[in-house]
Amino acid sequence: MKAAVVGGSGYVGGELLRLLLGHPEIELTQVTSDSMAGRAIGRAHPNLRRATDLVFAPHAELRPADVTFLASPHGESLERVPSLLDAGALVIDLSADYRLKDPAVYEQYYHRPHPHPELLARSVYGLPELHREAVRSASLISVPGCIATASILALHPLAAAGFVDRPPTVVDAKSGSSAGGIDPGPAGTHAERSGSLRAYASAGHRHTAEIEQETGLTIALTCHAVEAVRGVLATVHALSSQPPEEKGLWRAYRAAYGSEPFVRIVHEPDGTHREPDPKILAGTNYCDVGFGTDPHGGRVVAYAALDNLGKGAAGAAVQCLNVRAGFAETAGLGFLGLHPV
Amino acid sequence: MKAAVVGGSGYVGGELLRLLLGHPEIELTQVTSDSMAGRAIGRAHPNLRRATDLVFAPHAELRPADVTFLASPHGESLERVPSLLDAGALVIDLSADYRLKDPAVYEQYYHRPHPHPELLARSVYGLPELHREAVRSASLISVPGCIATASILALHPLAAAGFVDRPPTVVDAKSGSSAGGIDPGPAGTHAERSGSLRAYASAGHRHTAEIEQETGLTIALTCHAVEAVRGVLATVHALSSQPPEEKGLWRAYRAAYGSEPFVRIVHEPDGTHREPDPKILAGTNYCDVGFGTDPHGGRVVAYAALDNLGKGAAGAAVQCLNVRAGFAETAGLGFLGLHPV
Amino acid sequence: MKAAVVGGSGYVGGELLRLLLGHPEIELTQVTSDSMAGRAIGRAHPNLRRATDLVFAPHAELRPADVTFLASPHGESLERVPSLLDAGALVIDLSADYRLKDPAVYEQYYHRPHPHPELLARSVYGLPELHREAVRSASLISVPGCIATASILALHPLAAAGFVDRPPTVVDAKSGSSAGGIDPGPAGTHAERSGSLRAYASAGHRHTAEIEQETGLTIALTCHAVEAVRGVLATVHALSSQPPEEKGLWRAYRAAYGSEPFVRIVHEPDGTHREPDPKILAGTNYCDVGFGTDPHGGRVVAYAALDNLGKGAAGAAVQCLNVRAGFAETAGLGFLGLHPV
Amino acid sequence: MKAAVVGGSGYVGGELLRLLLGHPEIELTQVTSDSMAGRAIGRAHPNLRRATDLVFAPHAELRPADVTFLASPHGESLERVPSLLDAGALVIDLSADYRLKDPAVYEQYYHRPHPHPELLARSVYGLPELHREAVRSASLISVPGCIATASILALHPLAAAGFVDRPPTVVDAKSGSSAGGIDPGPAGTHAERSGSLRAYASAGHRHTAEIEQETGLTIALTCHAVEAVRGVLATVHALSSQPPEEKGLWRAYRAAYGSEPFVRIVHEPDGTHREPDPKILAGTNYCDVGFGTDPHGGRVVAYAALDNLGKGAAGAAVQCLNVRAGFAETAGLGFLGLHPV
Repeated sequence: MKAAVVGGSGYVGGELLRLLLGHPEIELTQVTSDSMAGRAIGRAHPNLRRATDLVFAPHAELRPADVTFLASPHGESLERVPSLLDAGALVIDLSADYRLKDPAVYEQYYHRPHPHPELLARSVYGLPELHREAVRSASLISVPGCIATASILALHPLAAAGFVDRPPTVVDAKSGSSAGGIDPGPAGTHAERSGSLRAYASAGHRHTAEIEQETGLTIALTCHAVEAVRGVLATVHALSSQPPEEKGLWRAYRAAYGSEPFVRIVHEPDGTHREPDPKILAGTNYCDVGFGTDPHGGRVVAYAALDNLGKGAAGAAVQCLNVRAGFAETAGLGFLGLHPV
Repeated sequence: MKAAVVGGSGYVGGELLRLLLGHPEIELTQVTSDSMAGRAIGRAHPNLRRATDLVFAPHAELRPADVTFLASPHGESLERVPSLLDAGALVIDLSADYRLKDPAVYEQYYHRPHPHPELLARSVYGLPELHREAVRSASLISVPGCIATASILALHPLAAAGFVDRPPTVVDAKSGSSAGGIDPGPAGTHAERSGSLRAYASAGHRHTAEIEQETGLTIALTCHAVEAVRGVLATVHALSSQPPEEKGLWRAYRAAYGSEPFVRIVHEPDGTHREPDPKILAGTNYCDVGFGTDPHGGRVVAYAALDNLGKGAAGAAVQCLNVRAGFAETAGLGFLGLHPV
Repeated sequence: MKAAVVGGSGYVGGELLRLLLGHPEIELTQVTSDSMAGRAIGRAHPNLRRATDLVFAPHAELRPADVTFLASPHGESLERVPSLLDAGALVIDLSADYRLKDPAVYEQYYHRPHPHPELLARSVYGLPELHREAVRSASLISVPGCIATASILALHPLAAAGFVDRPPTVVDAKSGSSAGGIDPGPAGTHAERSGSLRAYASAGHRHTAEIEQETGLTIALTCHAVEAVRGVLATVHALSSQPPEEKGLWRAYRAAYGSEPFVRIVHEPDGTHREPDPKILAGTNYCDVGFGTDPHGGRVVAYAALDNLGKGAAGAAVQCLNVRAGFAETAGLGFLGLHPV
Repeated sequence: MKAAVVGGSGYVGGELLRLLLGHPEIELTQVTSDSMAGRAIGRAHPNLRRATDLVFAPHAELRPADVTFLASPHGESLERVPSLLDAGALVIDLSADYRLKDPAVYEQYYHRPHPHPELLARSVYGLPELHREAVRSASLISVPGCIATASILALHPLAAAGFVDRPPTVVDAKSGSSAGGIDPGPAGTHAERSGSLRAYASAGHRHTAEIEQETGLTIALTCHAVEAVRGVLATVHALSSQPPEEKGLWRAYRAAYGSEPFVRIVHEPDGTHREPDPKILAGTNYCDVGFGTDPHGGRVVAYAALDNLGKGAAGAAVQCLNVRAGFAETAGLGFLGLHPV
């Protein structure tokens, strides 16, 4: 299958190229980037030195492919998606442009009307754990945000089991520096970010809308920048008038994820790694979920850890392609992750 | 004033020595440590090389002083405090042994009956922002836990203003590696801890009891280990049926802390450091507090950042001494902190 | 081909297991560890959760396999190797026990006579870039030390081209924390190691002997601990009475490594990654080498970066197996590395 | 004494402000910054919140003071120094503009003729350990580069004792991210810099000229970027045909620095901190020096660690002022540093 990547010079684009170059069913035919046009892929992504002879093409020279991935900044997909769909390609969009179903919610969170509201209904939210069947026949797949994926996967079994009965559901998210992209501005230099531990969004973060859309719950989301390069940890504090015992939580999570290839339940009695930690997930497509009960506090605590560039972006995109194209769902996603790292 | 430090070879002890050596009113007369007995202070605390000629003494050789600081591990103060009080010394205990007022709560969280419940009433909780008058006449001061201090200082103005009207109050705490002490075990090696981002206590953390004691609220506390050496950030999600506007929050925090020497309100409209970040507080006695409102989610978010070895331990101990002894409250605590670091 | 791993619970063992589990020609039949006997592999190596059903076996239960890897601590291979060789297995030893050819040099650096000096001659130094033919027929392969591999690969082209004509050749090595193993002691806690930058061996480091053995040069090696989890950078200052121009250096390195699958020459005119950096090599078997000339200072500077657990240990072991067994040399070693990470 | 700081919004400027605000003999009267003009000091330097009411002034409004510190970028002092000197002020320049004595060497390293070569002779190199007497009567003091200070202080006792008798003297320097300034470009983002370990100058670094000027030796300097925010470690490999024993090294270093207030000899028999580590020096004016001998390799190894913003810049500037003004040399420089941090 021939694949093209639009906007391949950023961090999400680089991770996507790495995965596609190692994918047994994919031939990577083109990578566009206006800023890097004419330069070798390895100049933007030093880990890909020698791995390909491709050179970045200017976006204007984009050619049709069986599947086109859009890894360009938010907003740029708004107009690219319709023309690519018209040309008959399968489109997998890694931006936020087509994730929300309700145009009013889009406008509320992105502060402009959506230019193609009719396509929002057509877009499939690219979370196979919730929408595998819809992904199989989608023409437009919109890959979820990294914090949204973690939050939804932590919450979904709790919501499905009826454990969450009091709003709001508090999500306290922590993310690493690569989530800020390749040009993070003054707050993203090493001297400023190293060892820091600070909130950057008390409320109103855009992923709130995605989590509410997918879980049906009222979400109170706060996001923090912590020291890590890759990684998101979503800590969910789900209020429950009768918090279940651990046994009930195990049952709920096993029911939801027992046969999922990329969701692992991590909740061990002892050891360093008894709850999920994104540290060991860099480069993988895993989302590790864990939990604890707090009868005293009247809540269930749930965790989900992932690599914001992996299951939180490029990995999820490849997983969706695998489902859509009928490949093995794990094709090209076999990297187990490193420990320690 | 002559001061002795019991248990001076750990991280809290080392920070206390640094502060006392630079304190204009204090003469440090003795430091005990059985494990380091006979060795120079600088061998345990390389930053104190040249700063003192003192040598660690075995604990059995402890001599009376005007004030005795206990920086030994939790549990060791239980029996040391009574005998020191009998000897007439002012005792400032940095362990958890005398923080809780209610013996039943102590037993619930520490899994043993308190051997001297009558002294719990006599002990003053060493948070001058809430108990300055009591500190002035105390004979036994119990320095709060680092996560407790941050959580209480974030919550106190909200509780005082009546903004928190629905339980539980969720506290999502993040702390750096020095909070694990000088011998943190297998989870605390650099290879395991670097870049990690994981919960180590979903519920039941002992500081829960302190926060509930001081705020009167039901607390749902979860603690995380993040990559940083010094620093705690407590993110408080306080449920509120009618979350106040920012203006009301400013008013509440200014009323509480407008004249406090060590609590700064940090909530700026832009810039990297618009909310509290413990990164810039290493070595200081500051607690920076900030906030945000979330009408959609039905809560107020509040933050408090501090240095777990500073305002979260040794700095608070010195501040309490200053209040108790009638020194300037800022004496010996003038370090402004570094940026960047 | 059936493979067993002795001493599989440490960091080198874990990386080896990861590589062998993904190797297309290998069936991993047994992993021993006395300390973890009876526990699942994933309890020691959380990245391998779900990847295997194997359980650690006590060493006494080791069964024959086609190839046995020894990943136990230095010293333990001394007696294990002879008995395994007697049993007819191919042995790949990742310890330092059989790396040196000269028993006198072994005794000088390890402070004891070698108990099986006759086997030192039989052991092949597992650096295919220098000894590929010998590896093809070896029964005992001794995998080089991580700092040695980097230093030798940086120096080899310079020595071969005759550019180094004045002793000593200064090697200034920097390594990350995982090189200290899973139990690094008090200097290896996160609080002590984070952000540190210090020498731990001014002279006399044991890898000196390996580098001298393989290059024939007099080596002056100093080793530093820096903040990184995985990674070694060897900076070689090779004294030269007539330092060649860049062109001559390119020629020398291309001659040495132009067809090597795992040595990349990295020396770009601009950009962040213009010289080798181990940061992007975590999990890979690459050694990136670079260089600069300094006519003013009378030397050539050369760099080699690698993952101390990859090309510096487990990756090299698998590469040697591939050469020995006639597999594709890159089999099981296809991971390209992450950027950023 | 009234002090003004020109260019106070960068990292060196911020550290200088912190030190001057805490200096018992100094009244800080003005801080200029065109980019931050009109904003409070605390907006650029969050650690200085509340510590001063000063607001950045545009440079054009600079008023005379008893001492003017120039903390603006290299090149900007070239024309500012002459006019300030004409106005009769004491000038302490933290840029590289007036460090070199020989105009030809300046042109060689800075690629332009020096516009005021006559002032180079008048400028005093601000290293009190070598030039205390000259500093006492200087009108223009040029603060050394951070790598130069470390290298010179490591080398000076060796050169003075005649231990270095073969060129070149190899200096392998490692520095943290704050040395790259507040706007470090694409290589300085957290995602790129975190955990990295790479050379950025194989040869030809400008500090080479300073080290050669002050030691009279031929220097072969290579510089590396490592993960740390503050800190420089210079590892000096000094070739010696008869390397002295440790005893001789102790003697040489004690002779040089036995009575220096800010140079500590660190070379202990055991423990984590047995050689210098800049980690514990953040915020201090110390330079810790250590050493080792290598008869096998024919060299002495020497180390010097410092805070690039402290003894490597702002701390040295204040120390020079203290010497020049007749204050206690340690005035305002009493911070002992933190451990751990």
